[in-house]
Amino acid sequence: MLSGIGISPGIVLGKAKIKKENNIQIIRESIKDINAEIDRFHEAIECSKRQIKEVRDKTLAEIGEEEARIFDAHELILEDVTFTDQVINKIKNCLINSESAIKEVSNDFITIFNNMNDVYMKEKASDIKDVSERVIYNLLGIEQCDFNSMTEEVIVVSKDLTPSDTASFNKDKVLGFITELGGKTSHTAILARTLEIPAVTGINDLLQKIEDGDFLIIDGNSGQVIVNPNNKVIREYEKKKSEYEKQLLVYKKYKDKKTVSKDGINVELVANIGMPSDIKSVLNNGAEGIGLYRTEFLFMERDKLPTEEEQFQAYKEVVEKMDNKPVVLRTIDIGGDKEVPYLGLPAEMNPFLGYRAIRMCLDRQDIFRTQLRALLRASSYGNLKIMFPMISNIDEIQEAKKILEEIKVDFKNNEILFNENIEIGMMIEIPSAAIMSDVFAKEVNFFSIGSNDLIQYTVAVDRGNDKIANLYDEFNPAVLRLIDTIIKNAHKEGIWVGMCGEAASNSELIPILLAMGLDEFSMNASFLLQARYLISQLSVNDIKQELPQILQMKKGKQIQNFISKITNIKNFKRDMEDYYD
Amino acid sequence: MLSGIGISPGIVLGKAKIKKENNIQIIRESIKDINAEIDRFHEAIECSKRQIKEVRDKTLAEIGEEEARIFDAHELILEDVTFTDQVINKIKNCLINSESAIKEVSNDFITIFNNMNDVYMKEKASDIKDVSERVIYNLLGIEQCDFNSMTEEVIVVSKDLTPSDTASFNKDKVLGFITELGGKTSHTAILARTLEIPAVTGINDLLQKIEDGDFLIIDGNSGQVIVNPNNKVIREYEKKKSEYEKQLLVYKKYKDKKTVSKDGINVELVANIGMPSDIKSVLNNGAEGIGLYRTEFLFMERDKLPTEEEQFQAYKEVVEKMDNKPVVLRTIDIGGDKEVPYLGLPAEMNPFLGYRAIRMCLDRQDIFRTQLRALLRASSYGNLKIMFPMISNIDEIQEAKKILEEIKVDFKNNEILFNENIEIGMMIEIPSAAIMSDVFAKEVNFFSIGSNDLIQYTVAVDRGNDKIANLYDEFNPAVLRLIDTIIKNAHKEGIWVGMCGEAASNSELIPILLAMGLDEFSMNASFLLQARYLISQLSVNDIKQELPQILQMKKGKQIQNFISKITNIKNFKRDMEDYYD
Repeated sequence: MLSGIGISPGIVLGKAKIKKENNIQIIRESIKDINAEIDRFHEAIECSKRQIKEVRDKTLAEIGEEEARIFDAHELILEDVTFTDQVINKIKNCLINSESAIKEVSNDFITIFNNMNDVYMKEKASDIKDVSERVIYNLLGIEQCDFNSMTEEVIVVSKDLTPSDTASFNKDKVLGFITELGGKTSHTAILARTLEIPAVTGINDLLQKIEDGDFLIIDGNSGQVIVNPNNKVIREYEKKKSEYEKQLLVYKKYKDKKTVSKDGINVELVANIGMPSDIKSVLNNGAEGIGLYRTEFLFMERDKLPTEEEQFQAYKEVVEKMDNKPVVLRTIDIGGDKEVPYLGLPAEMNPFLGYRAIRMCLDRQDIFRTQLRALLRASSYGNLKIMFPMISNIDEIQEAKKILEEIKVDFKNNEILFNENIEIGMMIEIPSAAIMSDVFAKEVNFFSIGSNDLIQYTVAVDRGNDKIANLYDEFNPAVLRLIDTIIKNAHKEGIWVGMCGEAASNSELIPILLAMGLDEFSMNASFLLQARYLISQLSVNDIKQELPQILQMKKGKQIQNFISKITNIKNFKRDMEDYYD
Repeated sequence: MLSGIGISPGIVLGKAKIKKENNIQIIRESIKDINAEIDRFHEAIECSKRQIKEVRDKTLAEIGEEEARIFDAHELILEDVTFTDQVINKIKNCLINSESAIKEVSNDFITIFNNMNDVYMKEKASDIKDVSERVIYNLLGIEQCDFNSMTEEVIVVSKDLTPSDTASFNKDKVLGFITELGGKTSHTAILARTLEIPAVTGINDLLQKIEDGDFLIIDGNSGQVIVNPNNKVIREYEKKKSEYEKQLLVYKKYKDKKTVSKDGINVELVANIGMPSDIKSVLNNGAEGIGLYRTEFLFMERDKLPTEEEQFQAYKEVVEKMDNKPVVLRTIDIGGDKEVPYLGLPAEMNPFLGYRAIRMCLDRQDIFRTQLRALLRASSYGNLKIMFPMISNIDEIQEAKKILEEIKVDFKNNEILFNENIEIGMMIEIPSAAIMSDVFAKEVNFFSIGSNDLIQYTVAVDRGNDKIANLYDEFNPAVLRLIDTIIKNAHKEGIWVGMCGEAASNSELIPILLAMGLDEFSMNASFLLQARYLISQLSVNDIKQELPQILQMKKGKQIQNFISKITNIKNFKRDMEDYYD
């Protein structure tokens, strides 16, 4: 039994297929004809671009838009002149063959980026490695491994898998995969979850432990891998697999039901989306609306701003498809970790504490006004609400509302249709907004608590930082006190409060949030049915009586154990666990 | 009249001396004897190292320890094999002269670092530029500009000044300086303030606007520069200069007084220090103790951890020099932006939300225990108190106290002397600690509010990020509510509260903090006398009556104006303004 990290849920049993690494030796050769060598380099670049485009298109057709963008980033590397010029200069100045020149230049970049020990830079390093290997393969005329032509059902075992590898899997043949390198948030993990292939990563010396043809069990829920199990273990896991799949069927029965607790408290269960194409899964999972439409994806991985018309079409598509169900559209949260190269934003030392979202929008009003115009136009096609992110002080929300009002006046003067009563809301994700929520509640029609950021800032922990992951605690009593304050202040002013962070889908937090009176729970579509089932099993008024006691507890662990005990929801925990990207 | 940014206070009048930039052309020459060329390169490196060491030693002797460290960083670049190896490889592979090889390699590094657009990386880029220019000068046998040999009093005018330039100023001759490039927190600015030379930066096209011999007035307080003023203006500024210097004399009268408000409220006025050598200035400015001894400087810019004995000597020196006045020693706040290369800490995407301070100490207990042993030993030589930084949850403070208790037991068993009643405190600089301060107050003997970080996390703004500087607001009402809560919770448990962030020396915040009942104000020594004078002019009970109203205000600006009006402290504002590094 090997223990790793589950990066895509589900249980699967099957035969191991080892993917060996190509070890290609590159020989440094002197060249004479510089121009011919540069032509050769350019041809390999063009060929690589074509291949990347193919993978991209296949991904777009078979997997999804967002996933396809991974390969846009790869293409951008080949279009980056600081990279290609350095290779060409090396060929010219040192009179060497393209393979060596690429190898040396990319190694320089990779070393520098890796030495920085920055998450971003490391990802860039791994992208550069992928892409430069592809170019070298093309120069050498070597074919890359093809997962599309597998003939029997296998579990792929490999030191590492690139997104290109994963996107090219034949889903009928690849039952699951195990790697040594990678993480829950890697591009490969995201692809695996979308493809619904169970997967485990983080097993050291994997290739010494598993051989071609070994019989394997992967438990993508627990992160465990069993090599050549005996029949008893096989039977046990077949049972687990069938129970897991049966549980999924129970959840499916809740698709068209209302979200009501055991004692009759009604809440709204809605989904987070990134683009119109996500709606299919949202409706399949019985969402009562969209609690968070992240519009920034429309702005990313392209080379210029989307026009008002492009935005309008996207927003209109979402509200129309949702057929009068509420859609909370969040204005762009760009900047920081969400890179938009064409905006020329400066990189920052602490992007999570940086120039982004409403901070950028109030500064770059050209961008902001275009988005507001587009969404106001879309508001006449369904039930659209506007939400502003990253509000930290009262001036920001007042300024945002003022700009919106100006556009409304302009629309009226020009007889452009829009919903005059459109609801305006704000994210509460910065501690200052939570603390001042009594004041903010007088300014807006609703709040949505962004629990991920709110936790992050309240405990001063970057949730992407593994070394301090233990401090990022959704049950931290300070965070719960803030949430309680926000909900109380909102209800005092008669406005509703939702939550669109991961805490809203945490099976041990849902009972507390229900007891505090949270009105709307917004989450990744794949959690909706489980959450609705869970809520149907809970007596909210019973938990409410324990709330004062809970808010006096000193430690998150204490609170978590207490809730676990009084609600007896242990069984749900695993299923609800977070595979969120 | 030219407007820039004052980076070192004071007013000065004198003649301009332009420092021109060296424009050296480097010719790419083929070489035959590789080994001879590499020897040449090594000689230039050694020569540059000697020069850097000289500047460093001069700085150490004439300016200070901290300032001298700037040049340790320069030396490290020349000792970095990834840099020197690349130059040597370039010499070998392309058969070119050392000057060109260095130029090309350093340009590659500088381009990459600058393109990253990261504050750190840009600083590294500028260090690399400095150092590689020095090596090239040595290869070419060109002398660098020498400020030490100036013969008449001048105001230096230059596009940019390196720390090497500034450190080599002859203080009797250089009255002040003006540059186009630089900022308040640059190494050059820090040196200027330590040398007490008025300085202004940030004036575009400076060298087109000022000529050699022009008569200049620099106002380092307001950031203004006047070129060839008429007699009236000269008289006006001579008056300003004398008023400024007179005001400084008034402050000096408060050196040996207690810190008491007009209506008899007594508080403690103490200083922040970084190393034993700071004590001189602390005592000169009449501090009643040390409110924050930042021990991390003892760990930085060196190549291995300081031993227990080294630490003990430093801590003992501080408590002994402070002669029974209280000294609050903060355990190391290393990591994040405070780099300690020999610890091999990973670089982080958001260092301010990262693995640092107590988070690192509880993980690296070897380092933590050594420091605790050293400071416990020092505790028997004076009035030492311990403070733990970056506490975000109750487990951390309990764990830190447990470790300290273990060491105390060990000391008792081994008959090592220490103060058994040593006070234990914690920083409140993370919102979760402020919100849970009722619980934390039962765990410690005192709190010290780290206002810089507390503001930063509460409003989610990196205070080093210029693009959102308007959001970093010391008067943000959410921050003031948190501070009020902290002080109330502390006093309810009978413990005292200090503040060691910049807010403690803000002339418009001091009245509010006094009204809230803050017990101790800790600041840069240079602000102490002004603060004591200010406090002596205030009636705390009058302000206290306005406090409920202040805490209901919506905006920072509103609060600031209100305080300004009721206390009439406008006159102090300029002098108290922040030149803090």
